[in-house]
Amino acid sequence: MLFEKIKSPGLAHNSYLIGDDGKAAVIDPRRDVEVYLDKSSAEGFTIDYVLETHRNEDYLIGSKEIARKTGAEIWRADDYLDYEYGQPMEEGEEIEIGRLLLEGLHTPGHTPGSFSYVLYGYEGEPWMVFTGDVLFAGDVGRVDFLGEEKLEETAGDLYDSIYDKILPLGDEVILCPAHGAGSVCASAIADREWTTIGIEKNLNPHLQYESREEFIEEVGQMLEYPPYFNRMEEWNLTGAPFLSEKKRPEALSPDEFADIQDEGAVVIDTRTEVSFAGAHIPGSLSIWKDNVPSFAGWFVDTDSPILLVSDEGYPEEEIKHLYRTGFDNIKGYLSGGMISWHMQARSSETIETIRVKELCEIMKGPKDCRILDVRSEDEVEEEGEIEDAINIHITQLPDHYEEIPENVKVYVFCGSGLRAMTAASLLKREGFENIGVTLGGLTGWRSSTCPRGETRSSKERGLEIADSLWLG
Amino acid sequence: MLFEKIKSPGLAHNSYLIGDDGKAAVIDPRRDVEVYLDKSSAEGFTIDYVLETHRNEDYLIGSKEIARKTGAEIWRADDYLDYEYGQPMEEGEEIEIGRLLLEGLHTPGHTPGSFSYVLYGYEGEPWMVFTGDVLFAGDVGRVDFLGEEKLEETAGDLYDSIYDKILPLGDEVILCPAHGAGSVCASAIADREWTTIGIEKNLNPHLQYESREEFIEEVGQMLEYPPYFNRMEEWNLTGAPFLSEKKRPEALSPDEFADIQDEGAVVIDTRTEVSFAGAHIPGSLSIWKDNVPSFAGWFVDTDSPILLVSDEGYPEEEIKHLYRTGFDNIKGYLSGGMISWHMQARSSETIETIRVKELCEIMKGPKDCRILDVRSEDEVEEEGEIEDAINIHITQLPDHYEEIPENVKVYVFCGSGLRAMTAASLLKREGFENIGVTLGGLTGWRSSTCPRGETRSSKERGLEIADSLWLG
Repeated sequence: MLFEKIKSPGLAHNSYLIGDDGKAAVIDPRRDVEVYLDKSSAEGFTIDYVLETHRNEDYLIGSKEIARKTGAEIWRADDYLDYEYGQPMEEGEEIEIGRLLLEGLHTPGHTPGSFSYVLYGYEGEPWMVFTGDVLFAGDVGRVDFLGEEKLEETAGDLYDSIYDKILPLGDEVILCPAHGAGSVCASAIADREWTTIGIEKNLNPHLQYESREEFIEEVGQMLEYPPYFNRMEEWNLTGAPFLSEKKRPEALSPDEFADIQDEGAVVIDTRTEVSFAGAHIPGSLSIWKDNVPSFAGWFVDTDSPILLVSDEGYPEEEIKHLYRTGFDNIKGYLSGGMISWHMQARSSETIETIRVKELCEIMKGPKDCRILDVRSEDEVEEEGEIEDAINIHITQLPDHYEEIPENVKVYVFCGSGLRAMTAASLLKREGFENIGVTLGGLTGWRSSTCPRGETRSSKERGLEIADSLWLG
Repeated sequence: MLFEKIKSPGLAHNSYLIGDDGKAAVIDPRRDVEVYLDKSSAEGFTIDYVLETHRNEDYLIGSKEIARKTGAEIWRADDYLDYEYGQPMEEGEEIEIGRLLLEGLHTPGHTPGSFSYVLYGYEGEPWMVFTGDVLFAGDVGRVDFLGEEKLEETAGDLYDSIYDKILPLGDEVILCPAHGAGSVCASAIADREWTTIGIEKNLNPHLQYESREEFIEEVGQMLEYPPYFNRMEEWNLTGAPFLSEKKRPEALSPDEFADIQDEGAVVIDTRTEVSFAGAHIPGSLSIWKDNVPSFAGWFVDTDSPILLVSDEGYPEEEIKHLYRTGFDNIKGYLSGGMISWHMQARSSETIETIRVKELCEIMKGPKDCRILDVRSEDEVEEEGEIEDAINIHITQLPDHYEEIPENVKVYVFCGSGLRAMTAASLLKREGFENIGVTLGGLTGWRSSTCPRGETRSSKERGLEIADSLWLG
């Protein structure tokens, strides 16, 4: 038997490879499919089936590329959409994987045509359930894709899917969702690497309500919708262009790099926030390597030509992340990094940085500066707000540039300093010049001896108003 | 949070690495500990605790080597034994791993001082239980280490441990045993990579009995006891010699190799059965690479000087397997393999092979040959016996050489041909000359068009007598 959970960090995406007696299936493969082909080949399996739980919005699915390499049958969900590949899954459809059996369960809510798959073991009893974006560890799928006016209906569908189809499988059944902690497909997935239906019944906050109505009320919320989701929705119906046919992003000399930037390419600098502060190419956007999957989709158009600056010889991880979310127009990367740039006597810029203790001292005196806090509303609510700060979540910043003062110094602030540098680079690109970045962010603040107010734990969330952190 | 199941193939051993907030613990580490150090370091964790579930008999534990590298505290079980390291675990002892908690449960039966560990998640509820060799997927631990006269007591203890301590944790709790399918620590662990208490309650055949008495009757059985267990029992009290201090096995020229063999070293040839048949060094023992963990312990003394012949440049996997089971006296390996041996004009030998169809034809005529079937009693019972075969399980062969006829050709037979070649090499070393090996074994037989009798499935095991396969 073959069973592997394959995780894609950044996207917090889980896919699953299941095999028995030489036959294998993949559930919700990501776009770069070598991992499935390599793992199945190494164990002597051929992939015969690809099963999708729904039309995904947050990453590109690799079903067609697997089918092309292996001849696998694709079973897809959400048949109401105009798919250009695969055959539609149906309620009760059974797929044999050797002595194992996968059965389709129609579980609408996250999308109208979402499917979950029950895996029956050798003895014929439910062993695992692959719930896609219906039920996660500590959370449930978002239900806002059809718009605010449909929230009651979609949240109700999700409730029925969970309570009528998933939970009755039994407390002992292992739950295999399509996402782990950090995904944009739900608001607060728990850091619980393995879970069961019984554990979720006990611990999942959304399974503790007293009625279907209360579930609908709490779960039926509009969440943020990154612009790149549009590209995902389109390509996940047609099938994304095959990665195996793509040209490799080029190693570019500083001159070549500068020429492509001059023609309008977006420069994404994936080095740490302090490297970016020290010296960066004018006009470039700071998105730390591990944050590329979370933020490129907010600040870069999916069709834009892209250039990369990194500390790696070949920025492989960044390129993978971009491809997984449909940024296919990667022109290349700066060969030799910033060292080669400067050795060609090219210009670069810096961004002022400040440590939390220094900011604390400054704020004690006459305040001729402002703090721009780019943490999310949830973070501010849970971890405490900064007195007198301008609060704009980083993803909303491009719609709120007019709220940023230009006549005083603005210190950008986040949880650690990484997002603050992204925000600062956006502001600089917009022409703001009097910008500094707070290194360490709230975590640093808490570790320092600066006086601060009480913060409330996430347990108390929703029960009382957050106290302010105070300065001086 | 950090959670990793680390598997050691061959031994079918599972160990677990758990971490939170920079603190980490390993449960039942194997002797070569780099995997735990590397994985924890890569994620920014230091190992603070090593927890043992019991004094192991089937592999060497790496607790002391981890402690030496990290300063970790060792908590060990089986305090009635004369341990030379660690501190004794006690019922209800709690170990904090960041926001996670591990609690010791005394669960005797497999050994008198076995412990299981309950892992409580962030919310304080039982999330997983590490049961060591008490409860597996589809099986329970063997209870025969204290001898036949204690079986009733040890099986009763095991029953109480499972029913009073493990099962009450809840159907939804994830079960993390120390072994998977193929281990010598139980008779028939199921191929179920992840399981829960509820799944075991439904499917584990040993949890279906109607009474404690029936459990004791069925589970209280004497099993095979490989001689290398003695070395494990000794070194798992003192701590095995540190692998990091060991000299690396040497690459040996054919001359050097032959000299060491002449001085009495055992030659283990880990190539496939057909390579061994084609040409092997006189006196060598055929144990296919992946079978080294299962069979070296039966046929090689743990103190013997060992030489290796393989198709690899450096037979790393074989060396790891040998070290994991206490074969520390590995002198080296034949550099350049059999090619270099022959290019020095050295002598080698062959073993006759026969395909199942050829054997079938031979057996139709006047039978001037015998079949030696080296499969286990369980295999013969489940899969069907060969008419007129001499049945001796391969592990028992060295005690039964006198039953092998010398005046007729003997064709050795197993499931595939691999164990048959091991048996043939043992017989050749003992001076038997008229030996052939059946390639394909029972699996080949079943795939062929040879007439054969009904075999019964494992489901019916114990309910009726096995039919014979017939020949001709």
